[in-house]
Amino acid sequence: MSDQKGTDSKGFDRSRRTFLRASALGVAGTALAACAPDDQEARRPETTEGEGVHDHDRTAPESDEPWREMDRSHREGVEAFPAETEGVPMQPLEPRLVDGVKEFELTCGRRDWEVEPGRITEAWCYNGQMPGPVIRVTEGDRLRVIVHNDLHQSTAVHWHHQHVPNEMDGVPFITQPPIEPGQSFTYEFTADPYGSHMYHSHYNAAEQVTKGLLGPLIVDPLDPSVEPEYDDEWIIVLNDAAHGYTINGKGFPATQPKVVRRGTRLRIRFMNEGLMVHPMHLHGMPMHVFAKDGRPLPQPFESDTLNIVPGERWDAMVDCSALGTWVFHCHILSHAEGPHGMFGMVTALVVEE
Amino acid sequence: MSDQKGTDSKGFDRSRRTFLRASALGVAGTALAACAPDDQEARRPETTEGEGVHDHDRTAPESDEPWREMDRSHREGVEAFPAETEGVPMQPLEPRLVDGVKEFELTCGRRDWEVEPGRITEAWCYNGQMPGPVIRVTEGDRLRVIVHNDLHQSTAVHWHHQHVPNEMDGVPFITQPPIEPGQSFTYEFTADPYGSHMYHSHYNAAEQVTKGLLGPLIVDPLDPSVEPEYDDEWIIVLNDAAHGYTINGKGFPATQPKVVRRGTRLRIRFMNEGLMVHPMHLHGMPMHVFAKDGRPLPQPFESDTLNIVPGERWDAMVDCSALGTWVFHCHILSHAEGPHGMFGMVTALVVEE
Amino acid sequence: MSDQKGTDSKGFDRSRRTFLRASALGVAGTALAACAPDDQEARRPETTEGEGVHDHDRTAPESDEPWREMDRSHREGVEAFPAETEGVPMQPLEPRLVDGVKEFELTCGRRDWEVEPGRITEAWCYNGQMPGPVIRVTEGDRLRVIVHNDLHQSTAVHWHHQHVPNEMDGVPFITQPPIEPGQSFTYEFTADPYGSHMYHSHYNAAEQVTKGLLGPLIVDPLDPSVEPEYDDEWIIVLNDAAHGYTINGKGFPATQPKVVRRGTRLRIRFMNEGLMVHPMHLHGMPMHVFAKDGRPLPQPFESDTLNIVPGERWDAMVDCSALGTWVFHCHILSHAEGPHGMFGMVTALVVEE
Repeated sequence: MSDQKGTDSKGFDRSRRTFLRASALGVAGTALAACAPDDQEARRPETTEGEGVHDHDRTAPESDEPWREMDRSHREGVEAFPAETEGVPMQPLEPRLVDGVKEFELTCGRRDWEVEPGRITEAWCYNGQMPGPVIRVTEGDRLRVIVHNDLHQSTAVHWHHQHVPNEMDGVPFITQPPIEPGQSFTYEFTADPYGSHMYHSHYNAAEQVTKGLLGPLIVDPLDPSVEPEYDDEWIIVLNDAAHGYTINGKGFPATQPKVVRRGTRLRIRFMNEGLMVHPMHLHGMPMHVFAKDGRPLPQPFESDTLNIVPGERWDAMVDCSALGTWVFHCHILSHAEGPHGMFGMVTALVVEE
Repeated sequence: MSDQKGTDSKGFDRSRRTFLRASALGVAGTALAACAPDDQEARRPETTEGEGVHDHDRTAPESDEPWREMDRSHREGVEAFPAETEGVPMQPLEPRLVDGVKEFELTCGRRDWEVEPGRITEAWCYNGQMPGPVIRVTEGDRLRVIVHNDLHQSTAVHWHHQHVPNEMDGVPFITQPPIEPGQSFTYEFTADPYGSHMYHSHYNAAEQVTKGLLGPLIVDPLDPSVEPEYDDEWIIVLNDAAHGYTINGKGFPATQPKVVRRGTRLRIRFMNEGLMVHPMHLHGMPMHVFAKDGRPLPQPFESDTLNIVPGERWDAMVDCSALGTWVFHCHILSHAEGPHGMFGMVTALVVEE
Repeated sequence: MSDQKGTDSKGFDRSRRTFLRASALGVAGTALAACAPDDQEARRPETTEGEGVHDHDRTAPESDEPWREMDRSHREGVEAFPAETEGVPMQPLEPRLVDGVKEFELTCGRRDWEVEPGRITEAWCYNGQMPGPVIRVTEGDRLRVIVHNDLHQSTAVHWHHQHVPNEMDGVPFITQPPIEPGQSFTYEFTADPYGSHMYHSHYNAAEQVTKGLLGPLIVDPLDPSVEPEYDDEWIIVLNDAAHGYTINGKGFPATQPKVVRRGTRLRIRFMNEGLMVHPMHLHGMPMHVFAKDGRPLPQPFESDTLNIVPGERWDAMVDCSALGTWVFHCHILSHAEGPHGMFGMVTALVVEE
């Protein structure tokens, strides 16, 4: 039984440190500090243009009212964000170059995964990651992916929207035999078309994919000018079954924020590997949607709430012009918040100077 | 406990009177009269081009068959439409002009709400309305909204898709402290961008929004030519949790129809504040969809069934050219009809001469 | 009680024979043969460019492991595809020409329907078919449809997106009396607009439509140049309630594949008559989406996973350039696959030389 741990947790730690620094020093920090209910400075009675004003003119309820417990619970959730948890998803996967072919290796296995602090589930992973490692190539690259099956079930890998030869399509008993436990199978094809794509199990898939056998496949275009320019990117993989509502394998407060400098042109690559639709709502700044399923739209459109449907990918650009910590969540509110606080499909885009 | 009643029920009464007049005198009335099963004139044996023909050649079942009870129940539902109920949603909210700022006041509270005749639920309201009052401003207006919390829970207000400063974004413990019971909070920002928008609670939101803490925020463009011209408008707010399937806070037959003269260019502003998708289907005339999330689409498209997803707004134009009573409903049929008749997300567009 | 059987099962038999021939001789057949786990030739230890490679280097589990039973069950499902079952949907309905009017006849009735091999349900049908017969006319044709009700409930027919006079709109007690058991009703209108449309019950519709009272209404444009050219077409009607997840009234392995020659321009007409969204994912080749709800889109877009929402139609063109058997399924994976194999909303596009 495979029980890999992410070998590189630096990405995780760095993003947390960056966020906390932002919280302490930057705009986000100001906001977080300013809104603590015990911080009396936050309750300015004076009207200040552009800032909220609290007043206590109304009768205050008793201190043991249930709403105080609700507030405490919500507050603790926010203060824990972004929480550190065991299991690092979506590490870049380095290929070997073999006779001009980019060769990748994926091992399917099970491991304990900390979805949110203290909540451990059994994840079915590629290389111990859920979502699996990011496979990134350039349009026209020759790709070889050796898949080892250390699971207790057969499996197979489908390269969602890649124009592969039929026998590389990953559908057991139709295009290939299943990869039995203990076996390996080698996929080989030319990366086409470019765009934000996915790879995932196509066997007992309602279970295998939702439990974690999925990952991002990014195909950069040969001619970069066919896509809009961007400074930074954010892959957002949604899932909603065995592990609850997750963004990149984690539920709030263990989801990771994206911290950028003001002025960043941020590309978001949405992917839905779950069983439900998820309309993702970004606060503060519009999303300019320019590609669906990895393919450019004839005319981009603007959106604040973009519905990501199982199997779809959407690409959107955000011009990060507004300072602050902007919540980013599924707008099916029951996927994002309950009486005890925010959970599941909630993260934040933090824009600092 | 707030227990406000809508102070102005004239809009409601007028629309009902108009509808009944149309039913009695106009095309809709002709249709309704013509289709009563007891009205033997409706069962013309002669073929008339353009009209339906009934015949009784086949063996008629027994008079106590269950289908007769089903028909009676369906008929009663239609005859009750549009039913008067307690609770008037979405009244225009008048601002005070204070030093060039448009100042609005919202009070959160609970009240009994008659969703459909005889079915009373507890609604959580802004100003005793569900959906809350229509806040309407012009792009670039300076807006101040004083929110009083008379609820038993803390709350906060999010201005969905308005480009507000971070501290006005309405997310407790991230951008502001929660507005505790008995407290008030003042939001202030400049209306941007224009379009069909919403305001709603962003605290314990899966409960607070679906119970009623939501309302339309209409921002008219400074330059009207950026939007298509229209003669009349219809705001359609969808919700689907605590109060059942509702359009503007009511279920059929208490939903309100829209009655227009032939030739009217009718703008429909769809908003989904629920937890489920709702593909709204208009009979008789196509919808020309020209904006999503308040923002103009690069190229409008035509639709008869437009999927409205939680958090989204869509704007569509209907050229009301076809006389009659046109049913308008969610096409997830279980949100609109059961064995006992139509219910929930059903209303009608009535076009008269 | 009507208990009609499809009078013409030739279409069904032919498609099965064609598929099996493709399986035996063509690319699909090669794939199916090559992937049988007992076929040792499929497990080539040598790396061959463009082909999958299996190896047995890892420890093989015991032969009575549960995964072997899972593999066997999955394999049997694929081998049974496309299975013959009782009940042929969507036969072309021939009109009588009466004084320039195309006259069709539909009889509503119940019958046993074999959704998948051995699973019999009670279908509510037009002319003993589920979905009902394909009514096909040309834009501007005068259409008369005589509907006989042999059901145990009243009913009525709605012509989804046809611009009919209000009294032909098919909504009992609003535009017409219900068609009682034993009665008939005649609809008459001019076909407008062109496109991929539907007809279905608009009475007790959550039950009547999902049980089978629905069918495709294809209106060819008077000027064919307003639509893209195509060589062949495939109507895909989705349903998801009483009979499980179905494509054209059948669940996998009783769904029917589409077999085409390489180079075919295949038009797919999607229609959703169910209660859930279904993102349909075609393997191997992109779909060029050019119409929604029967109306041309201002700019087509490319997609591999197209969300079809209840009440919607979408038209897409596939340039069938890639040889092989390409799975085509709903990407809500729980609508398409379980631990025992694929089921429900799965079919295949077979491209042969």
